[in-house]
Amino acid sequence: MATAVSKIGPVSFDTHPSKYRHWKLAFEGPVATLGMDVQEDAGLSPDYKLKLNSYDLGVDIELADAIQRIRFEHPETHTVVVTSMRDRIFCAGANIFMLRGSTHSWKVNFCKFTNETRLGMEDASANSGIKFLAALNGICAGGGYELALACDEIVLVDDSNSAVSLPETALLAVLPGTGGLTRVVDKRRVRRDLADIFGTLAEGVKGKRAVEWRLVDAVYPASKFKEAVKERALKMAESSDRPSTGPGVALNPLNAQVSDNGSLEYSSVSFAVDRAKRTATITVRAPKVPVESTIDTIMAAGDQFWPLRVFRELDDVILRLRVNEPEVGTVVLKAEGDPALVIEADDVLLEHQHHWFVRETIHFIKRSLKRVDLSARSFFAIIEPGNAFAGTLFELALAADRSYMLDDDDQANRIQLSPMNAGVYPMSNGLSRLQARFYGEPGKVSEALAHEGPFDPAEAVEAALVTVAPDAIDWDDEVRMAIESRTTLSPDALTGMEANLRFVGPETMETKIFGRLTAWQNWIFQRPNAVGPKGALTSYGTSDRAEFDFGRT
Amino acid sequence: MATAVSKIGPVSFDTHPSKYRHWKLAFEGPVATLGMDVQEDAGLSPDYKLKLNSYDLGVDIELADAIQRIRFEHPETHTVVVTSMRDRIFCAGANIFMLRGSTHSWKVNFCKFTNETRLGMEDASANSGIKFLAALNGICAGGGYELALACDEIVLVDDSNSAVSLPETALLAVLPGTGGLTRVVDKRRVRRDLADIFGTLAEGVKGKRAVEWRLVDAVYPASKFKEAVKERALKMAESSDRPSTGPGVALNPLNAQVSDNGSLEYSSVSFAVDRAKRTATITVRAPKVPVESTIDTIMAAGDQFWPLRVFRELDDVILRLRVNEPEVGTVVLKAEGDPALVIEADDVLLEHQHHWFVRETIHFIKRSLKRVDLSARSFFAIIEPGNAFAGTLFELALAADRSYMLDDDDQANRIQLSPMNAGVYPMSNGLSRLQARFYGEPGKVSEALAHEGPFDPAEAVEAALVTVAPDAIDWDDEVRMAIESRTTLSPDALTGMEANLRFVGPETMETKIFGRLTAWQNWIFQRPNAVGPKGALTSYGTSDRAEFDFGRT
Repeated sequence: MATAVSKIGPVSFDTHPSKYRHWKLAFEGPVATLGMDVQEDAGLSPDYKLKLNSYDLGVDIELADAIQRIRFEHPETHTVVVTSMRDRIFCAGANIFMLRGSTHSWKVNFCKFTNETRLGMEDASANSGIKFLAALNGICAGGGYELALACDEIVLVDDSNSAVSLPETALLAVLPGTGGLTRVVDKRRVRRDLADIFGTLAEGVKGKRAVEWRLVDAVYPASKFKEAVKERALKMAESSDRPSTGPGVALNPLNAQVSDNGSLEYSSVSFAVDRAKRTATITVRAPKVPVESTIDTIMAAGDQFWPLRVFRELDDVILRLRVNEPEVGTVVLKAEGDPALVIEADDVLLEHQHHWFVRETIHFIKRSLKRVDLSARSFFAIIEPGNAFAGTLFELALAADRSYMLDDDDQANRIQLSPMNAGVYPMSNGLSRLQARFYGEPGKVSEALAHEGPFDPAEAVEAALVTVAPDAIDWDDEVRMAIESRTTLSPDALTGMEANLRFVGPETMETKIFGRLTAWQNWIFQRPNAVGPKGALTSYGTSDRAEFDFGRT
Repeated sequence: MATAVSKIGPVSFDTHPSKYRHWKLAFEGPVATLGMDVQEDAGLSPDYKLKLNSYDLGVDIELADAIQRIRFEHPETHTVVVTSMRDRIFCAGANIFMLRGSTHSWKVNFCKFTNETRLGMEDASANSGIKFLAALNGICAGGGYELALACDEIVLVDDSNSAVSLPETALLAVLPGTGGLTRVVDKRRVRRDLADIFGTLAEGVKGKRAVEWRLVDAVYPASKFKEAVKERALKMAESSDRPSTGPGVALNPLNAQVSDNGSLEYSSVSFAVDRAKRTATITVRAPKVPVESTIDTIMAAGDQFWPLRVFRELDDVILRLRVNEPEVGTVVLKAEGDPALVIEADDVLLEHQHHWFVRETIHFIKRSLKRVDLSARSFFAIIEPGNAFAGTLFELALAADRSYMLDDDDQANRIQLSPMNAGVYPMSNGLSRLQARFYGEPGKVSEALAHEGPFDPAEAVEAALVTVAPDAIDWDDEVRMAIESRTTLSPDALTGMEANLRFVGPETMETKIFGRLTAWQNWIFQRPNAVGPKGALTSYGTSDRAEFDFGRT
């Protein structure tokens, strides 16, 4: 079952357009074109061929990188056209042979990353003045159509060949689980009975009917397709509030020092793993000197601007943790350094929040924090003297499942809020982490934000900003026992528990994708009808026919 | 794995207080007391003993029946005290040995029914003037606490023994999946980090801390417990708008004729099964004469009042279908008779909607329709000449995944709406089925409702009220092929697909329980860490220790 993945070594998420194997990125005025051209033989594993523009995690890492770079390096880009460099095929979706050969955990983490990438496109559309146009110049199936669904508009070539389809249920006995089912009815608002037909029709829908069913926005004959795409892309670009010219900010390699034991060392983040104990510690460090405070100096700092740098590093840690350290179940979060410098950095972010680069930085931080919320690991924030859990970095303590703060008469230990805790970094459900924390006592949100200066442990407990604040006598034992006890529990039950407790209150399309749709897909990814010896995913492309146990659950 | 369930024959949901084995129902003024006293040896299967007031489906069928009867038979009841007849133990939750011995499908359907029962209690509180007080006179664990969470208020005896707990994650590697996790943070609004501790603490929380954490509303010493419960119950009763005296409406047995082949025949509903084809047809029949139209005659009709009768029968069909016919994946819905009499019945329901009995009838219909939405079967409405898909019965067509309407020039075929389609029967997500259908075109809701009289097939297609309307030449083939094709698909993929497509738009605590929480629980119910040979659910109560694969997904 696990052949493909077992041959994949530690995955790195560092890449660059000059190294892309699967995408061509081109710029013309306000329009960037992201052309899919997947190299069959360049999958992460040699066990499968990425035929027909099908994708694996490696293809999606490049896509995510490209979108990130468009946001930061190309402020003059206002529309991104997502298309294919191939004739007659846009994208066949996630590679089936990759899925078949993957462990359950690999499938789940692959889908999580691709979901985050697609939600990142929607985030750019909603918040960064970048619109996405899916230009479907050929067959668009499964994950290919899910990628199109993440775009603002979808146009399809009108020929006898090109259709959009979600054939997962009909052919593979799995779901269009990378947001597909949710986006069809919740975003495209396809009528549920038409969606039902579409979701069971392997060959999909094309031409005028695809427009009538709201599956695409328009179809064009092949002769007019390129011109129409160009026209629409330019029109979509008009509403952007991005600059009309550069310069952008280059995203240089993070150059993490990777140890054999899995530990990672960056400029402002450390990741220390104890595989025997199945724990890790992520330490983020405050800036050592005040951050740049004018647009000129911020732009000159570029990707070394501390708020961007520290969260790019944290983001990389979280991604590597998920894929490369599957057994590390409990993660301690620490923040070190001078909290006053974090609060100063927050002031700078707030002051310049409408400048395109600072805005991108803020939304990057937001997305990285969401990755923490969505990681299937237990997070405990450990707050000790010398900590820098202030403002933006305090979001990490709020994202944690629990927080422990040392209350020692002999050493000052403080946390602090800033206006950046007031809603700048909403969770997937649209609530700030303070709102989620105080869902039962909403008055405490404004009380906490109104508090002047730092909170000592007694004040932090009184304001309910930390879970517990043991004294120096109990501290070591209490923290150690909490972590040890956590590591003995079933990782599956913890995943389910955390996924339910972290997201109180309202739901959004995003939480529906990660909650309802993903949870069902993960269920199906274990079902014999999909992955058993006679399951449809197992049998696909072989001479065997799938055999189902028809019992409904 | 399936020993327990394999010995359970077809399950009947018909019962009566005179036959209860596990509950004692007592009435005093406005307060009913529902006392749990589970008979160890009276489980549905002899394979397990229902020790410590633990429960199986049989116990929950009685609970559901009792609540239904309180609503209909005891209008003078304004508060229900849910308590235990045992000393020192309220309820230990779902029986672990039953869960261990059950098939996946049985576990899933058991949880679905218990969820519906608990949501039914909340429905009575929100809509029927009946408040629920959980009087926890002893240990209250797992599903026992989930039952308490479904009540409006929870009081706990304050002694050295009695705690509330959700030990599922810590002891069994599963979730408190019958609404527990969702209600703790979304209804009780326990802070998420405290909920995290509570959810991993096998021994639970008691006394003052249980109040501080919002897990219970109050604690009382044993000496004052009964008096305090009585006082609170009477106080809760004061706000009710129910009558102060009876008479109620007796719910007589449905007396379904059950055939060996699984078919069921009721006064107004038929259920015909074709096990070889894995299909069934549910036919509901319009009243044959005008329904009673004054409160006096309606009360005299009692449970023979057609709207109640037909939906009690339908409800029974759906419940039996789920548990007794696991392989029937596709269900055809038909409505027969005079649609004018259905519309007349709707007028009567609307006119008297504020009378307690009519109100109960309307909410009963609403809950039965929700059971259809939540059933993991594909529903196709087949609309032919002579159909009675009008008003309330048209909700069945709207609940269906697809609807097929015959468009034959030679025979009239019509559907019709009534004001009862305008929001009286909301789905779990709070939308009317018309709103859900037209989530992408909200204007069509009011357009359809404003239409005078019936819709012929062309009008129905124009108003988008049916999926397709084939003509007489295509009809037989198109319907047959749609059903045949549906029955070849993976039942698991269909379950996941339908659970996602049916619930567009907003989410409620109810949809979070059925979507997010249930989907994760079903995932966990398949995981080796819970149900494998060394899983925690398998090992519980044996001398073996659970062994986990610590890989996180």
